Amino acid sequence: MINQDTICAVATAQGGAIGIIRVSGPEAIAITSSIFMPVQEKVKLQEKEAYTLTFGKICKREEVIDEVLVSLFRAPHSYTGEDSTEISCHGSSYILQQVMQLLIEKGCRSALPGEFTQRAFLNGKMDLSQAEAVADLIASSSAATHRLAMSQMRGGFSKELTDLRTQLLNFVSMVELELDFSEEDVEFANRDALLKLTENIEQVITRLADSFNVGNAIKNGIPVAIIGETNAGKSTLLNVLLNEEKAIVSDIHGTTRDVIEDTITIKGTLFRFIDTAGIRETHDKIESIGIERTFRKLDQAEIVLCMIAATDSHEQIEQLAAKIKPKCKGKQLIMVFNKSDLITEEQKNDLEKLAIKHKSSHIFISAKNRENTIELEDLLVKTANLPTVTQNDVIVTNIRHYEALVHALDSIHRVKDGLHNNISGDFLSQDIRECMHYLGEITGTISNDEILGNIFSHFCIGK
Amino acid sequence: MINQDTICAVATAQGGAIGIIRVSGPEAIAITSSIFMPVQEKVKLQEKEAYTLTFGKICKREEVIDEVLVSLFRAPHSYTGEDSTEISCHGSSYILQQVMQLLIEKGCRSALPGEFTQRAFLNGKMDLSQAEAVADLIASSSAATHRLAMSQMRGGFSKELTDLRTQLLNFVSMVELELDFSEEDVEFANRDALLKLTENIEQVITRLADSFNVGNAIKNGIPVAIIGETNAGKSTLLNVLLNEEKAIVSDIHGTTRDVIEDTITIKGTLFRFIDTAGIRETHDKIESIGIERTFRKLDQAEIVLCMIAATDSHEQIEQLAAKIKPKCKGKQLIMVFNKSDLITEEQKNDLEKLAIKHKSSHIFISAKNRENTIELEDLLVKTANLPTVTQNDVIVTNIRHYEALVHALDSIHRVKDGLHNNISGDFLSQDIRECMHYLGEITGTISNDEILGNIFSHFCIGK
Repeated sequence: MINQDTICAVATAQGGAIGIIRVSGPEAIAITSSIFMPVQEKVKLQEKEAYTLTFGKICKREEVIDEVLVSLFRAPHSYTGEDSTEISCHGSSYILQQVMQLLIEKGCRSALPGEFTQRAFLNGKMDLSQAEAVADLIASSSAATHRLAMSQMRGGFSKELTDLRTQLLNFVSMVELELDFSEEDVEFANRDALLKLTENIEQVITRLADSFNVGNAIKNGIPVAIIGETNAGKSTLLNVLLNEEKAIVSDIHGTTRDVIEDTITIKGTLFRFIDTAGIRETHDKIESIGIERTFRKLDQAEIVLCMIAATDSHEQIEQLAAKIKPKCKGKQLIMVFNKSDLITEEQKNDLEKLAIKHKSSHIFISAKNRENTIELEDLLVKTANLPTVTQNDVIVTNIRHYEALVHALDSIHRVKDGLHNNISGDFLSQDIRECMHYLGEITGTISNDEILGNIFSHFCIGK
Repeated sequence: MINQDTICAVATAQGGAIGIIRVSGPEAIAITSSIFMPVQEKVKLQEKEAYTLTFGKICKREEVIDEVLVSLFRAPHSYTGEDSTEISCHGSSYILQQVMQLLIEKGCRSALPGEFTQRAFLNGKMDLSQAEAVADLIASSSAATHRLAMSQMRGGFSKELTDLRTQLLNFVSMVELELDFSEEDVEFANRDALLKLTENIEQVITRLADSFNVGNAIKNGIPVAIIGETNAGKSTLLNVLLNEEKAIVSDIHGTTRDVIEDTITIKGTLFRFIDTAGIRETHDKIESIGIERTFRKLDQAEIVLCMIAATDSHEQIEQLAAKIKPKCKGKQLIMVFNKSDLITEEQKNDLEKLAIKHKSSHIFISAKNRENTIELEDLLVKTANLPTVTQNDVIVTNIRHYEALVHALDSIHRVKDGLHNNISGDFLSQDIRECMHYLGEITGTISNDEILGNIFSHFCIGK
């Protein structure tokens, strides 16, 4: 697909010393040249070699808008694969806006979000999963998310999928060839070899799909719900963990009505904290909604911190534990006994026994005095138990990829079943083609405007 | 002055698609090269020509941190005049921080604010007033501020000052030569020609110093004070003008206790609005402080908008006008009759007569209903009466320059007086040298670490 129009966008955030404007498309060099006067008068931008820098002025009629450096790229050796320039200006919003306006006057179009990367994809500079990794890379804020994005951008994931697809294509061709000779009952595709391949592919796709758990946890954080009775100190704990005063803390029961989420990296592991309304019985309508929301939020959590005021009566605590425990099936439960500076050793022993009875981890803290909160952080990291990833690990982080993998797995299961049941080649071919389709969707071998529009609209402008 | 160390800094704001790291100093190319692997393996960054771009990877041990473009500059043909590189990364804060860390590990030092521009000055790439204009250029947010900064950066101002200094130097040399031959009573420096030169220089410096009024108004906005009795609608008007809800508006008398300032560009003219506490007599201590502050703020205003509730009794309004008028000497007073939708034509006529009596402009508005507020904006622009500047106009915008010019003018006056009174050559020489000193301070011909430190510390990092 060839783009006829030339696009431009500011590619840097507002407020720095330098501001960059990107121009890409068939007229990129001609349009840039029309507003740019090189300092050395004999120099012509259009005649310069690719991968060079030229110093000069951007002028609007007699007025100098800025003194700039222009980087020159020629198709196909550019980010987009098209002729491109990058204009490095002083980082004034006024200057950038003026230069953009000049470019548009001369025939450029203001780029849509992600349009440069979309063009790179459409021009075959990268596949779709690599293009998606560019946005992840820019958003990466920790070593782990950076590593995942870089691995995906460098194409390890794509290569693995393309390999699988090629193997499937070879086989399906054979199967389809048989169909052409169906009257002769030949078998070009060795069924045993196909079964072996199918099992191999099933294994690889399963591994990739399974890696999404880890990938998602690394990228979006491990969801941790903090629940407990009102006034047990949930907000105080959250503040301690987040090191800020985001949740409103007060001594009035039921202060925290809104579900506040925030993320924090503890020892390299990202956690997404969900603070919740207290779960005491209430007749207050707004608060009831908050409590409903609390239990709904619990579904999303992987780790549940059950905050308990250690000073409450043992009976009350037992009731609470009995109420919460059934809601935590399949989750890691940690009982956090707060205000534990105010209880006796004997009371502690009783609480310990309670935790053991409920097969729950437990810890004694005082959120207010910041006692044992570091140990709680350590316990969280230990409970999360995320593996260390390297740039060579192929890990799925994208929900779109995960969904396609699940579909592909479905198809490959059907192929396998079909082989076991000796179904006819045309059904077999259809299932293999379906599996190929889903794998192709990930890398963009198969794509449509809607998918692309959806993906690139989440990019920032200028990328 | 030669810098032995190599500096690096992120030169773009956080959050864009692209992030740029600048490196400058004797080891800039070697250090960049040590963390950078060009994609084409045979290529060596150190052997590349100046003004070229190289694509490759930044690696930290086995891990790829980013795929980047490196721009190469060689002394003296760079911004700083030193060997320099610019590393264009994906705009992730994690990546930029990692690359910075690598550069520092390899021997770079994190740059101070403005240090790249300071080096450009120290290496003779620009004079001090041009260096200062770089910061103004980056901060420019309107056509007028951009034009002033660009004119100063391109050196019109510097050239004018350098010319004056050269002429003074020629004369002072002659005068000082006379001193060497003092016993022979010769006169190398023609006193009439010197007087003529002095008058010429006096004229130029006066013009430059006077331009500061315009320059300052363009750069920092024309100060407009809005005063009036409590509840006359000052905050409402300010909100209308600023198009936002910054000042607290309420119906309780004396709500606005803090002096809030904000700027807005109306038809190309920048205004700096000063909202003030109401000036009614009060026994409230906090409010009294606010009122004192109001009158103090009045000193800084060039235009005073006197807000009057048109619905007040004529007697009350006359008292108010009589109280405010004496505080507005040398300022442009505009009587703004608010709530004028609630009065009769007859009342309007009376108020008009009052304004004429006080030689004040006037306008009838309703801030609440936004009636006539556009006309008020037009009246403000007309009252400000700022000249249109071009990039060729030399206009002083910098208070440091203005102060130096005032000192220089002082010295040149003494030279002129001395010539009229036939004072001896050594006194004359001293005054001429003093004038030269102040002119030299502006362009940085004369400078010291304290002045430089003070100037460049106001720059952003990476510039």
